Amino acid sequence: MNLLLLEEADFVAADRVVLGDRRFTHMQDIHRVAVGDTLRVGRLGGLMGQATVLRLEGHEAELSVEFTQPPPAKLPLTLVLALPRPKMLRRVFQTVATMGVGRLILVNSYRVEKSFWQTPFLEPAAIREQLILGLEQARDTVLPEVIIEKRFKPFVEDRLPAIAEGTQGLVGHPGDYPPCPRGLDEPVTLAIGPEGGWIPYEVELLGKAGLNPVQLGERILRVETAVTALLARLF
Amino acid sequence: MNLLLLEEADFVAADRVVLGDRRFTHMQDIHRVAVGDTLRVGRLGGLMGQATVLRLEGHEAELSVEFTQPPPAKLPLTLVLALPRPKMLRRVFQTVATMGVGRLILVNSYRVEKSFWQTPFLEPAAIREQLILGLEQARDTVLPEVIIEKRFKPFVEDRLPAIAEGTQGLVGHPGDYPPCPRGLDEPVTLAIGPEGGWIPYEVELLGKAGLNPVQLGERILRVETAVTALLARLF
Repeated sequence: MNLLLLEEADFVAADRVVLGDRRFTHMQDIHRVAVGDTLRVGRLGGLMGQATVLRLEGHEAELSVEFTQPPPAKLPLTLVLALPRPKMLRRVFQTVATMGVGRLILVNSYRVEKSFWQTPFLEPAAIREQLILGLEQARDTVLPEVIIEKRFKPFVEDRLPAIAEGTQGLVGHPGDYPPCPRGLDEPVTLAIGPEGGWIPYEVELLGKAGLNPVQLGERILRVETAVTALLARLF
Repeated sequence: MNLLLLEEADFVAADRVVLGDRRFTHMQDIHRVAVGDTLRVGRLGGLMGQATVLRLEGHEAELSVEFTQPPPAKLPLTLVLALPRPKMLRRVFQTVATMGVGRLILVNSYRVEKSFWQTPFLEPAAIREQLILGLEQARDTVLPEVIIEKRFKPFVEDRLPAIAEGTQGLVGHPGDYPPCPRGLDEPVTLAIGPEGGWIPYEVELLGKAGLNPVQLGERILRVETAVTALLARLF
């Protein structure tokens, strides 16, 4: 946790918060804060700044807070991701938030196992929990937008073309394709497939929506690694 | 597992192997292979090719194998990494093998907790296990070299200058430094710090050894994410 992220419910006055949950435990156990210490804080969806510990008791801490600085810019990116297996999904939410993805769209794909859609990690509170961990890691305050599209074809045919319009549309896909571009300044719509990759029909449909295949070399990456590698290379 | 990695002990003839361990279970449970099916295989440290299932029994499989293709090239990179916490370390070994790092040197740093050095995940068999998982993921056959340097100063002063010589020497470090370069063709020696980063004295010593700080932006990445992001950007 490189940033203590504060929510509206934490505020007892405009410049004062009281914390008694996971964040309090973390402050005590990991940061070993004492009264008078300062910490980096952010207001969920708002500015970042500094907190000073005013009071520490057995079960809660009171901090005075001051917000002075905007969060880092998001990447100009919509990431369309075939739903990963549950264990990977949780880490992907964190990675996506840490890396600064603006919008994540989870889609179905032929190679996504049906059972993956049953995971409790897709419930809004569970998604939010992982995104917040990712923001705390990165020092960001703004939650990425997460959209769930359970049906591939209607999403790609009916909604993806408008999302991809005016952006560089890309599909991460191993094979004889152009290398993934580097250091772009423009907005991007990037689709990343499941383990085992998109099937040809899906690549074709993504192509009709304006997303063209690019490759990262011969090595097959885990989904989480592919997300990080593609984003680091694109921006 | 995108590649079935074979070791000398698996061979019962020059073109034939018998498998009865984790790889056999994986073939049955995940790939659901039948007699006559073909699989991608590689010979640890050698060529890659194809196997055909000859015989499947309750506890083992016999395959005929043919090796035709070299593994993908390694990155021309020595990665100097402050020892991560044990849970992260295992994934880092996999990531390093998957991404194609040629040589990994694990070093101490002021912010590495002493207890991290006690982890069983640093035992040679445990390291090898994770590296092999990473190679199987990427479809590679060549283990990265892993070196453990428990003392930072003698390593950086006495041995690192010779390693960094003739390479582009870089330290991933947040701050007011030049951005990390992109798409290099030359060999690189890259140092990545622990959670919380290198301390100034360490950055100074790495600089004397020929490694200069570069940054990846404002966001603080987990070690595993930083490794992937830096490699994807550099090569």
